[in-house]
Amino acid sequence: MHGAPQDRSIEETLTPRSVAVIGASEDLTKFGGRILKSLIQHGFEGAIYPINPQRESLRGLACYPSVQRTPAPPDMAIMAVPPDAVRETVAACAEAGIKAAIIVTAKFSEAGDEGAAREREVVEVARRHGMRIIGPNCLGLISPVNNLALCASPALFVPELPPGEIGFVSQSGALMATVFDRAITRGIGFSHCFSIGNQADLELCDFVEFLVADPHTKVICSYLEGVKDATRFVATARRVHDAGKRWIIVKAGRSEAGAAAAFSHTASLAGSFEAFAAACRAAGVLVMDDTDAMTLLAALLGRFPETDPRSTAIVTTSGGSGAIAADRLTDGSVPLASFAPTTVTALQVHYPAELCTNPVDMGAAERGLLTGVVSDTVDIVLRDPATDIILTPVTTVPDIKLVAEHVVVGEQRAAEAGYVKPHILLLQPAQSGEAARGALKQAKALYTDNLDEAVRTIAAWQRLASLRRRAAPERPADLPAAPGIGRGGAIDEIAAKRLLDAYGVPVNRAELARDAQNAAACAERLRAPFAVKVISPDIVHKSDVGGVALDLDTASAVEEAVTGMAERIEARLPEARIEGYAVQEMAAGDLEMFVGARRDPQFGPILVVGAGGILVELLRDVAVACAPIDATAALELLNACAASRLLGGVRGRPPLDVAALADAISRVSWLVHDLGDRFEQLDVNPVLVSTDGCVAVDARLLLGTGSDDANGAEGASA
Amino acid sequence: MHGAPQDRSIEETLTPRSVAVIGASEDLTKFGGRILKSLIQHGFEGAIYPINPQRESLRGLACYPSVQRTPAPPDMAIMAVPPDAVRETVAACAEAGIKAAIIVTAKFSEAGDEGAAREREVVEVARRHGMRIIGPNCLGLISPVNNLALCASPALFVPELPPGEIGFVSQSGALMATVFDRAITRGIGFSHCFSIGNQADLELCDFVEFLVADPHTKVICSYLEGVKDATRFVATARRVHDAGKRWIIVKAGRSEAGAAAAFSHTASLAGSFEAFAAACRAAGVLVMDDTDAMTLLAALLGRFPETDPRSTAIVTTSGGSGAIAADRLTDGSVPLASFAPTTVTALQVHYPAELCTNPVDMGAAERGLLTGVVSDTVDIVLRDPATDIILTPVTTVPDIKLVAEHVVVGEQRAAEAGYVKPHILLLQPAQSGEAARGALKQAKALYTDNLDEAVRTIAAWQRLASLRRRAAPERPADLPAAPGIGRGGAIDEIAAKRLLDAYGVPVNRAELARDAQNAAACAERLRAPFAVKVISPDIVHKSDVGGVALDLDTASAVEEAVTGMAERIEARLPEARIEGYAVQEMAAGDLEMFVGARRDPQFGPILVVGAGGILVELLRDVAVACAPIDATAALELLNACAASRLLGGVRGRPPLDVAALADAISRVSWLVHDLGDRFEQLDVNPVLVSTDGCVAVDARLLLGTGSDDANGAEGASA
Repeated sequence: MHGAPQDRSIEETLTPRSVAVIGASEDLTKFGGRILKSLIQHGFEGAIYPINPQRESLRGLACYPSVQRTPAPPDMAIMAVPPDAVRETVAACAEAGIKAAIIVTAKFSEAGDEGAAREREVVEVARRHGMRIIGPNCLGLISPVNNLALCASPALFVPELPPGEIGFVSQSGALMATVFDRAITRGIGFSHCFSIGNQADLELCDFVEFLVADPHTKVICSYLEGVKDATRFVATARRVHDAGKRWIIVKAGRSEAGAAAAFSHTASLAGSFEAFAAACRAAGVLVMDDTDAMTLLAALLGRFPETDPRSTAIVTTSGGSGAIAADRLTDGSVPLASFAPTTVTALQVHYPAELCTNPVDMGAAERGLLTGVVSDTVDIVLRDPATDIILTPVTTVPDIKLVAEHVVVGEQRAAEAGYVKPHILLLQPAQSGEAARGALKQAKALYTDNLDEAVRTIAAWQRLASLRRRAAPERPADLPAAPGIGRGGAIDEIAAKRLLDAYGVPVNRAELARDAQNAAACAERLRAPFAVKVISPDIVHKSDVGGVALDLDTASAVEEAVTGMAERIEARLPEARIEGYAVQEMAAGDLEMFVGARRDPQFGPILVVGAGGILVELLRDVAVACAPIDATAALELLNACAASRLLGGVRGRPPLDVAALADAISRVSWLVHDLGDRFEQLDVNPVLVSTDGCVAVDARLLLGTGSDDANGAEGASA
Repeated sequence: MHGAPQDRSIEETLTPRSVAVIGASEDLTKFGGRILKSLIQHGFEGAIYPINPQRESLRGLACYPSVQRTPAPPDMAIMAVPPDAVRETVAACAEAGIKAAIIVTAKFSEAGDEGAAREREVVEVARRHGMRIIGPNCLGLISPVNNLALCASPALFVPELPPGEIGFVSQSGALMATVFDRAITRGIGFSHCFSIGNQADLELCDFVEFLVADPHTKVICSYLEGVKDATRFVATARRVHDAGKRWIIVKAGRSEAGAAAAFSHTASLAGSFEAFAAACRAAGVLVMDDTDAMTLLAALLGRFPETDPRSTAIVTTSGGSGAIAADRLTDGSVPLASFAPTTVTALQVHYPAELCTNPVDMGAAERGLLTGVVSDTVDIVLRDPATDIILTPVTTVPDIKLVAEHVVVGEQRAAEAGYVKPHILLLQPAQSGEAARGALKQAKALYTDNLDEAVRTIAAWQRLASLRRRAAPERPADLPAAPGIGRGGAIDEIAAKRLLDAYGVPVNRAELARDAQNAAACAERLRAPFAVKVISPDIVHKSDVGGVALDLDTASAVEEAVTGMAERIEARLPEARIEGYAVQEMAAGDLEMFVGARRDPQFGPILVVGAGGILVELLRDVAVACAPIDATAALELLNACAASRLLGGVRGRPPLDVAALADAISRVSWLVHDLGDRFEQLDVNPVLVSTDGCVAVDARLLLGTGSDDANGAEGASA
């Protein structure tokens, strides 16, 4: 029996100096057998305590009947005992003074209510003793910088654990091992890999914060299926950024929301993946969809943290491979470099003048590949001022190993002259490329077998370079302290526009009329021409039921229009509750835009912008961001929409007033932010944009009850 | 000296019974050295004649000083002599009675005018003797079904050439060898591979026609950079189809046209790649953008020629891999299967009921993977009536080789019960998956290391299954025999609409007025309201210069409008030649569509349809097809546009008259077809579509001089 440990830092928790393997054995078909083998094989320097009451020793180590009987309390224990035995085993560990336990066992919260109850009990037992838990339902950890493998995967049955600068936190154990295996096969190493399982106690952000502080880690990679605590997630992302490190996440389940949700305005336009992605963009976290490209990019970022790979040069042994690579990079929106004249001249040592362009086909050199062509070409292109990164597809050439080595020589020559740039070899041959792979791995050169991966990697790197964590947006001085609205539920157009107006969003002037006669009176106070719209909680698409009249020139025309409208709606929708008729000044504009927002249950108000009117349904092309944003960020958001092509002016017409629109978007974002917990959904559609300003013509707002405070403003938090 | 051969069939030409290697040696750094080694190693049964005046024997074979001195005339010779020596060597071969020569040597037509002249001379010499040439600037051929390797690539330094059912014709030699290497590494074999180089004599279609007739070949793959003879290409594609075989093409240079051409109406909307792709679709040829996926699909098609993989099941060892695969298949528009109730029930043998869905996570089975879970699951899912194909991502599980073997067992069990369906294993581990790869290769199971490749393969297979060569479209009986138009150049709106009207395309009635007074007279003969547009060869975008007036109710309003228009244009564009003013009945419609066509220099008239008006510039989303097409094909074309979402009716409005639009598109396609060689470009924009018909509101036609015949109709050919 050892004493109970005190609360300790995550660093101390995750870097144990002694470990116990509960259920250790020599049988490699068992978890405890594989774990013990890897643990010993990779040279962990701390004490290893195999726990197995049936054995005196295992693999040459003294074996102990229980964790209580080890000579000193182990820092960490790993167990793969049956589900029903976990609680008891955890209790024994906690009582023995163990600081952290890895629970490999599954059938906890991932397996229904009973498992969830079991999981809560286990956590409770551990917490009572100040012991931390990794898992359950996880695969353990691999810490190459500590020579520590606490993981049952056969991927660890390798001669060594190459250390590297990448930390990996994975919600899937199988993927952790697979990513590890694929990476080390091509010479990419890790600092630490954590399989976090159900995150019953230690969760994603604990591990990421460990890696933020870890001196061995430069780049953090994650595979996620969901986020437990969005607020902490965002805070952790900021810590990663502040530490000058990078965080790349592959998130599964992107397609579910999109496929399941019907297409109907904001709610489905910004599904929960979009909210997650928007939060990541705002925090400078890169989201990718492929773990291989994530690994390659992480390795490149470790070496070239400051590179912004805006233009890519292709240097290849085959014209055909070069052409396909150029096509696929173009498909992936990766621009190709246009060589500087000095580069073109330098290449003429080996190539006819007309072939000194990007892609460079080394197969077309005047002399054979191994006469200095490969190293010279790589060296020359790396010095090209217009080139940020080189992709080198290599085909089944003779002496491919030598060709690969010459590529590395060219790279080294350029580096010695101060031209240190990233370089990805695409080794296309399979079996006939094996020797070259070995040589590249030895030279610590980065390569891939897969063009898709190279394209994804460069494209993602470009996105990452353009991501910068935005400074907290500055609140415009002329905003009200809080939106002045008391009631909840569906807010009608008139009231919603009053709110927009208070926030400085231009709206067309409007009054609410009770009936036809009153409408005429409203019109007298406004400027012709007029538009009239019915206001009813039961009518969403007003024009479909004849509830909109436009271009009315006089008050009497307004009166007449409302009379007709009332009759039509009475005939078609006798049940509809009519709250009145909005009489508005007609607004002019050249383009209809959509500005909306919805409340994401995890990440709060998410702004959605795109083409408005009928185009919103046609294009399904919107851009989303977490609110609030400033006008600069709003401009970037607009640029991410296809509609930005129209804002720039079509067919030589003057460009529209994007600045006014961006300002309005920022103000809308502050409004939804200030509405706090009460905010549910806002559609401002259309916002009419002209060459000189913009105006919100229609608006719908939905508020929940939110916090107790009627104002709701203090529920807001950036 | 042997006699000159007679003209012979392509079959005889490409299946030599004896071969000569000119410049044969034992030095593997030389072409002749590598070729001789591979030729002997792979057991070619015909006579092999090494040609080298300095040697008596090479690698145990008698060596000859020249092709004239071999005991019998070789059927085929291969040479990699210097460019200047090619002509002489070819002449010697031809005089020796050799039937076909492979010229590996480069620096011919690919290297400028001098090389092109050299190439013409060489071909001339060969043709004089009836000798055929493969190349120059090629890498030779590999015919595993004949144990024949005439190729210098080190990719052939393998123990055997596995024969298969895929024929491959490649415009890039390096890619031929690389594709071959990657394929055989995973157990996929070929019937014949041809590197066709500059196609100075034998060209793409000769090789493809050989493969059409070849009994060993079921699927034909090609890598192309361009097509020499579009007419022959289309005819060859039809022969492939008629033979019940499939043709898959990866074409490089897709992106060039798109990137280079400015976006301006039809010309750049349907660049030359689009014309090529349209011709391929019409002929049932599948175009892909990746050679690895092409190879995998070809191998699958060889085994499952009739499969239409409409829905995919995922069976995986890892929930994480399953989630990522589901996302990526969704990205690639590959639908996932919804299991039938019988399948769900059957899966409950191994899984909790709530986990018996697609993807199936075998890692979540009640018992371990190797207790029958893997084979049972694969067997059960292959029997699922809703599943057409299975993708099985396998991660770094223990006993991965056994897991892979169990997958194959499950497949075999299903096959024995009559459920023969395609199955792709995605083997995710790198080094720890090597043993499993060996087992799969031995079992002749198809696998990939790469999720992108699997997604591309299934998505392309779906496209292929939906391609069927269209029957020649039937000419509507009411079309005129030929378009009645004599003059060439730019045809004005009035004349263009007259042509459309003659072809049965609905147009709004219009008359051409000389001046304001005349315009009023025209209006008297038409039905109000009217539109007036200026007609001038110098004004493309009429509304930008005030050259359009709409909603005119009376003849006097028309007169006034023309007067104002004339003054505005005189002020803004004094140089513009005014041909008159089109006075038209205003047309009504709910959606503007664009219907156009342009002449592709290779593939003839290419039809382009998409959203019209301002949307054509916003969306850049059009569909193209070779003209003519029938109304059914026009409907399919419309469905390929984003605009089809609008045609179906937006926000619960009734759908628009797509049938009328499809009929009009077909008629436009016949018009441009009938215009024959004279046709250059036609824009019908907009076509206004309503719930009851459609009407062409504006049209511009550009004709060239075409053939001598003023009618131009006989220049047309389907």
